[in-house]
Amino acid sequence: MAGKKEPIEFWFDFLSPFGYLGSILIEKLAAEHGREVIWRPTLLGVMVMKVMGLPPLPATPLKGRYTEYEGRRSYRYFGVEMNPFGDGSLPPLPAARAFTWLNMSDPALAKRFGQALYRAHWSEATNVTTPEAVAAFAQDRFGVESERVIGGIDDPVVIYSLRASVAAAVRAGVFGVPTFVVDGQRFWGTERLPMVERLLTTGSLALDR
Amino acid sequence: MAGKKEPIEFWFDFLSPFGYLGSILIEKLAAEHGREVIWRPTLLGVMVMKVMGLPPLPATPLKGRYTEYEGRRSYRYFGVEMNPFGDGSLPPLPAARAFTWLNMSDPALAKRFGQALYRAHWSEATNVTTPEAVAAFAQDRFGVESERVIGGIDDPVVIYSLRASVAAAVRAGVFGVPTFVVDGQRFWGTERLPMVERLLTTGSLALDR
Repeated sequence: MAGKKEPIEFWFDFLSPFGYLGSILIEKLAAEHGREVIWRPTLLGVMVMKVMGLPPLPATPLKGRYTEYEGRRSYRYFGVEMNPFGDGSLPPLPAARAFTWLNMSDPALAKRFGQALYRAHWSEATNVTTPEAVAAFAQDRFGVESERVIGGIDDPVVIYSLRASVAAAVRAGVFGVPTFVVDGQRFWGTERLPMVERLLTTGSLALDR
Repeated sequence: MAGKKEPIEFWFDFLSPFGYLGSILIEKLAAEHGREVIWRPTLLGVMVMKVMGLPPLPATPLKGRYTEYEGRRSYRYFGVEMNPFGDGSLPPLPAARAFTWLNMSDPALAKRFGQALYRAHWSEATNVTTPEAVAAFAQDRFGVESERVIGGIDDPVVIYSLRASVAAAVRAGVFGVPTFVVDGQRFWGTERLPMVERLLTTGSLALDR
């Protein structure tokens, strides 16, 4: 069958350093295979704590420390600079709501904003932790008036749209970030991109033997 | 500095389908790089439930189902047959204790036993779920008298040696299976073997740029 190939869904949360890595790697891989990437926001806090009933990862014995270590190592492995703002923690709501607000009228702009914001927080030690900082960032980098961004962040339509996106993530079986959905298959984590690559290349995951 | 390269530590639990995959893949990778693999038993149940305070993975919403799905997909991806005994669940104590017992006197035999037992449960639908079944398996495949195996499984020295191995895993920051320790670095999961490969090849994880 001819026709356009299915876009790849990229589920993300700005608070995840692995999400930023995933955002870079999936766009590169998708471009090599003529696929579009649709960015879909979710909130790890809701998925992990409310739906899965687990403690936040940094507070989980053994795994919390390993994940921090794995984050630094993964940045080296993939050749991306890790230089986060502050101690790395990012309250995700202002950024996620600003993304959601932009995404309603201009998905291409929203994606560029998301890419720039991810890089700002994780590689450029730039403050995007508050509504004011996010609004100033959007104005400086993309010329969107900061008062309009603040209005978007506070808009109940935006707030509930983001929650609807989280609910859609849960219904799709997404629980971690980054998750890539490719031709109906879910892949959790940057480490599974070689699987995604094989699927995009061969249309199958089975080894050629 | 000349001299022998450090062996790789392979932390495993027979109950994990990813552990079996890891056991195959790490031996292959290690052989290609002239490294020895030392098998070190641990118990996921103790690490996950008692140390980390988390529910068992199959009972975790969203993640439990994804992991089952990822298991089947990973076997296809790596070209290993998934044909487990029963519903796949394996009470790990009889097998882990038999391994520990054999390992005290003959580590090479213990490893061959571990490899065969992993394959028996996960690829050959063979029952190794009880002390009697494990003992019969050891006798049939390796000629070790089954009564001696049962004695080993019930031996308090063996039982506490296995618990000591779990405590050593926790102290080393190991919380999941498979975990590979290579030149002092921990790698959790079969998906991180490309990282291990880069470390073994270049002595570093940084990209050559």
